[in-house]
Amino acid sequence: MFFASDNWAGAHPAIAESLVEAAAGFASAYGTSDLDKRVEKTFSEIFERDVAVFFVGTGTAANSLALASVTRPGGQVFCHREAHVNVDECNAPEFFACGAKLQPVDGPAGKMPADALAAAIGRFPPDFIHGGQPMAVTITQATEAGTAYTLDEIAALAAVAGEAGLPLHMDGARFANALVHLGTTPAEMTWKRGVDILSFGGTKNGCWCAEALVLFDPGKARQMHFLRKRSAQLFSKSRFIAAQFEAYFRDGLWLELARRSNGTAARLAEGIGRSATARLAWPTGSNELFAIVRNDAIKALRDKGAVFYDWPAGPAVKATMAEDETLIRLVTSFATTDEEIAGFLSAL
Amino acid sequence: MFFASDNWAGAHPAIAESLVEAAAGFASAYGTSDLDKRVEKTFSEIFERDVAVFFVGTGTAANSLALASVTRPGGQVFCHREAHVNVDECNAPEFFACGAKLQPVDGPAGKMPADALAAAIGRFPPDFIHGGQPMAVTITQATEAGTAYTLDEIAALAAVAGEAGLPLHMDGARFANALVHLGTTPAEMTWKRGVDILSFGGTKNGCWCAEALVLFDPGKARQMHFLRKRSAQLFSKSRFIAAQFEAYFRDGLWLELARRSNGTAARLAEGIGRSATARLAWPTGSNELFAIVRNDAIKALRDKGAVFYDWPAGPAVKATMAEDETLIRLVTSFATTDEEIAGFLSAL
Amino acid sequence: MFFASDNWAGAHPAIAESLVEAAAGFASAYGTSDLDKRVEKTFSEIFERDVAVFFVGTGTAANSLALASVTRPGGQVFCHREAHVNVDECNAPEFFACGAKLQPVDGPAGKMPADALAAAIGRFPPDFIHGGQPMAVTITQATEAGTAYTLDEIAALAAVAGEAGLPLHMDGARFANALVHLGTTPAEMTWKRGVDILSFGGTKNGCWCAEALVLFDPGKARQMHFLRKRSAQLFSKSRFIAAQFEAYFRDGLWLELARRSNGTAARLAEGIGRSATARLAWPTGSNELFAIVRNDAIKALRDKGAVFYDWPAGPAVKATMAEDETLIRLVTSFATTDEEIAGFLSAL
Amino acid sequence: MFFASDNWAGAHPAIAESLVEAAAGFASAYGTSDLDKRVEKTFSEIFERDVAVFFVGTGTAANSLALASVTRPGGQVFCHREAHVNVDECNAPEFFACGAKLQPVDGPAGKMPADALAAAIGRFPPDFIHGGQPMAVTITQATEAGTAYTLDEIAALAAVAGEAGLPLHMDGARFANALVHLGTTPAEMTWKRGVDILSFGGTKNGCWCAEALVLFDPGKARQMHFLRKRSAQLFSKSRFIAAQFEAYFRDGLWLELARRSNGTAARLAEGIGRSATARLAWPTGSNELFAIVRNDAIKALRDKGAVFYDWPAGPAVKATMAEDETLIRLVTSFATTDEEIAGFLSAL
Repeated sequence: MFFASDNWAGAHPAIAESLVEAAAGFASAYGTSDLDKRVEKTFSEIFERDVAVFFVGTGTAANSLALASVTRPGGQVFCHREAHVNVDECNAPEFFACGAKLQPVDGPAGKMPADALAAAIGRFPPDFIHGGQPMAVTITQATEAGTAYTLDEIAALAAVAGEAGLPLHMDGARFANALVHLGTTPAEMTWKRGVDILSFGGTKNGCWCAEALVLFDPGKARQMHFLRKRSAQLFSKSRFIAAQFEAYFRDGLWLELARRSNGTAARLAEGIGRSATARLAWPTGSNELFAIVRNDAIKALRDKGAVFYDWPAGPAVKATMAEDETLIRLVTSFATTDEEIAGFLSAL
Repeated sequence: MFFASDNWAGAHPAIAESLVEAAAGFASAYGTSDLDKRVEKTFSEIFERDVAVFFVGTGTAANSLALASVTRPGGQVFCHREAHVNVDECNAPEFFACGAKLQPVDGPAGKMPADALAAAIGRFPPDFIHGGQPMAVTITQATEAGTAYTLDEIAALAAVAGEAGLPLHMDGARFANALVHLGTTPAEMTWKRGVDILSFGGTKNGCWCAEALVLFDPGKARQMHFLRKRSAQLFSKSRFIAAQFEAYFRDGLWLELARRSNGTAARLAEGIGRSATARLAWPTGSNELFAIVRNDAIKALRDKGAVFYDWPAGPAVKATMAEDETLIRLVTSFATTDEEIAGFLSAL
Repeated sequence: MFFASDNWAGAHPAIAESLVEAAAGFASAYGTSDLDKRVEKTFSEIFERDVAVFFVGTGTAANSLALASVTRPGGQVFCHREAHVNVDECNAPEFFACGAKLQPVDGPAGKMPADALAAAIGRFPPDFIHGGQPMAVTITQATEAGTAYTLDEIAALAAVAGEAGLPLHMDGARFANALVHLGTTPAEMTWKRGVDILSFGGTKNGCWCAEALVLFDPGKARQMHFLRKRSAQLFSKSRFIAAQFEAYFRDGLWLELARRSNGTAARLAEGIGRSATARLAWPTGSNELFAIVRNDAIKALRDKGAVFYDWPAGPAVKATMAEDETLIRLVTSFATTDEEIAGFLSAL
Repeated sequence: MFFASDNWAGAHPAIAESLVEAAAGFASAYGTSDLDKRVEKTFSEIFERDVAVFFVGTGTAANSLALASVTRPGGQVFCHREAHVNVDECNAPEFFACGAKLQPVDGPAGKMPADALAAAIGRFPPDFIHGGQPMAVTITQATEAGTAYTLDEIAALAAVAGEAGLPLHMDGARFANALVHLGTTPAEMTWKRGVDILSFGGTKNGCWCAEALVLFDPGKARQMHFLRKRSAQLFSKSRFIAAQFEAYFRDGLWLELARRSNGTAARLAEGIGRSATARLAWPTGSNELFAIVRNDAIKALRDKGAVFYDWPAGPAVKATMAEDETLIRLVTSFATTDEEIAGFLSAL
């Protein structure tokens, strides 16, 4: 019963097999092989427009390169306070962007409200040197709280960013999960709503190690080649990432895997909703959910072998919790089984 | 007939299969799984002492992190002029080390002579603030010229570095090739000769993507955890690197693969030695060789489908070349076949 | 009636004259002259212990170098949310420290409460790689709110920092103002209370351009020489800073100037206390005060030629303000005259 | 008899007095005062076109900011091997430019030949990611060898840079000395010959601390405001630099001072030319000269109190030197007296 993270799963068999198939033969290195090119083209098809794609090794790399590419000295980047870039990347975004600063914005359930974003940006008057200048906005889809921005919410944030002349980056570590939750298309969830740069994650959804930086304006791609290499993210046998993505996209596997993990998460949520000892902290929009659980139930779950993390509760949630309750995070993956769900719910 | 780079090969079947085997099941993320720990232990066995091991995604990352970990403001790092860190990493070492500077040292056949190193270090008087301060020495084994430092040469460089209080880093992108060429042990070629930090490469020798930073003093490892994460090189499903190394080390596969590519390189060298239109620029000590070839022979080779790169010749080599000759680089890999060698030599 | 900033004043005549006196003659450059050495010794006398002193050109440089010297990759630095390093230095601290991150802590009247600091540090568990690691605490004395930490408050913060193994930095841009307000000695306000590094400011208190970084543990000074030079803060004719400090310290001029500006600020505060249209937002502890003023009075003041800045009010202060009131900042300097005070108060 | 550096002189009385005059009164801070604006306008007059001017504290800062402003990831900057930015700034240019790399070019007497520059640039093929990309050229006028580029030489270098699409920066730490040596105008020596950015130095020529970054395309100035502030080079009482420049430019003082130091250097050179124990290593074009002197004469000079530095001789010069000779550097300043020259020459 592993609910600690979707990172604890391995890789889907089809993806691992793709690495076996691609292992034979010679191909030019550093992202120039036929396979690399073919998968890059697939990205353009999936997003319904010409995009520039850069394979990288980690989500941290994708996010940090994205922000580095759009910031200059004195740069301020706006994000949700709990965003991965702000709390879980050990200063990588700040390092890659040569000291750019993240400006955290608060909002319920992991989402940055458009008016809060506007207010935060408004605190930096144009040409006020000392405070630096707004340079980018980054949102996470699905969010760190397991919720998903609606298309309208994305458009509203993009409008605020655009008004201020700021590019909008989306951290899509769980892109597929949000996508199938919303039942929309990749294009609708991104550039059609004003997203400029996307960190497209495959690792959490069944790949071994497959992340891609997607630039919706390929005209801005030239510098990224050097930026990526300087950041040690240009892989010599880059086709090992391409091979994973090829299997990932084939016959819609990526959507199927996301549906599967969202589905187990939904059943988990439903069971928690019926439970006397636990309740959801807020509705989920992906494969991640947060529950307020009685401490004795938590003990029972762990005794039965369930693995999950306690999570720090923000003030608003804390106010709704009893003394003997704890906030926990549960993450399902493509590999989560019905037995695990049943086991967890019965232990609860 | 692919002799462009060992990066053009894919992965050895055993290594790709290891990724399939490891794909199932849950395991804790970010380098903490049993498999990660097991492979880390294997490194200690192979090096005959407790070492700290950090898996990373690229050789550039390993080198850059190594240098970043041993430099402070004003840091000068000494390397051969043609070292990969100096000419082929797009400023990644300088970036990771916050502006540290590489001080190139000349030497024949890709090797930095100990006295040239001592002279270069000597140009930085202690406490002369303006010029910065020596902070590290880095050597490449096998070198970018395909040669291998002898154990005595390594010891001599380490003595110079040690005298100046500088740590010695070894870029081992082709570690196994040099090792089997010298017929020595990993311990003898590194810490027993004074090497402090090693970039241990698996990718060029049959892995998909497997590089490790090895610290021979594990007491200095703590900061590296943060340094690696800040550089976006901590992989969530880190065991996908561990799984490659597990197969790589099993039953000495890594040494067998290196022997194979060194062997095809040797046969190539032998054939070139007999040729009327080509000669070796210097003896090889790995799977990489450099040949001076008549331009008409080069044309013939390429017409027959041989793939390789022209290489810039330094002044000393240039002086030995005729007008109608070109320096080329030939690299074999674990996947190079006898047919390819025969085909190349007959075309020559 | 200039109350915009103490930076708007020029230099005290004695300090400017000192530059004239020092202008003649030759002296060794880059901080090695007799005058430099002499003034460094004065710092040791003033602080009653051997200190290492580094002259720099701006307060931003002093603060940024201090933080850079005590942070490593993944470094988190704790400061008050309104601290100058956090809001007014255009990411210089983050840049100098290669991407270190400032963790803002809230507290009333510009002061960071010790328990809030402890809680903030506590959110970073040891060895949790993703979040980075606490590396330093920085406080401002006098604070950006014009208040001064008491000696006990400094000691309490130092105790929290020390418990966590973190060095304590003090931004003393208005060091002298806080010092004379508390009526204590430089030693008592710093190292005797646990401060490790000090940005000692002279510019705001009557110098042209004189800032010094003071290390209370001179054994840690060696790296700072290179750090300062790499940051372009080693002045060739460094004695032009030394000459200012020499005049600044002669016959206690620095304390006299601070008493003077604190005194005019106190009279201003007193007058505001008696006013019907204005009141202090909180008591002052330096030459800087914050007042809540009726908008019509603000207009009258500006019509009469008073120069000052509106200031953003935090939520706690805002809650006490009427709709037709504004928070303003008033700063006096050594050059502020009794006439200016009288003029301001009568216009109020 | 101080010939160690022009940095050993203090400040010209008129410049120190200007600081006394400017000390009184209030003025807006951070470069916005009337005096700042007035002096900026003077720069435009002197250069016969609208320029953007940024005052900074050190030559290292001016150079590093200039290079930082024109480099992006993977940036290669071409300079003479002995350029100050390459050997005497403790990695500040690399740090400010986030890891950009200096590519040293050899040339006699401190000058980079245009064809050598073209060859160096040519080693970086367009779109070859691994090696990074050319981004700027920087030259020093007068050079570190005390010579001055002719106007034609500058134009030739600018043509090479322009061909490659690279901006041309001039390090003018001894701008005035080269200018009066060539007998030309500031405009002719810079933008009319293709210089894009200039580090304009006043410190070595009689100021206390006055350096300016001059952008000949003011349209590119916006980012520099943030870059300068982030680098801790925005001075609060910026008018203390402006006041120095005001006196520096008044009635052509700066040219007079440069003529004076060039003149004493010329007399020194003449005397050395007549000497039996010394000879010039190459002709001088400023206030700096390099002489090959017999060791017994050097001893005699130092015994008589002459202060100067030995200098490392490059291979070409070394080949012309006897075993008992040493290369020395002699620098005169505005404050060098005829007695010092006479004393030196008689001791020789």
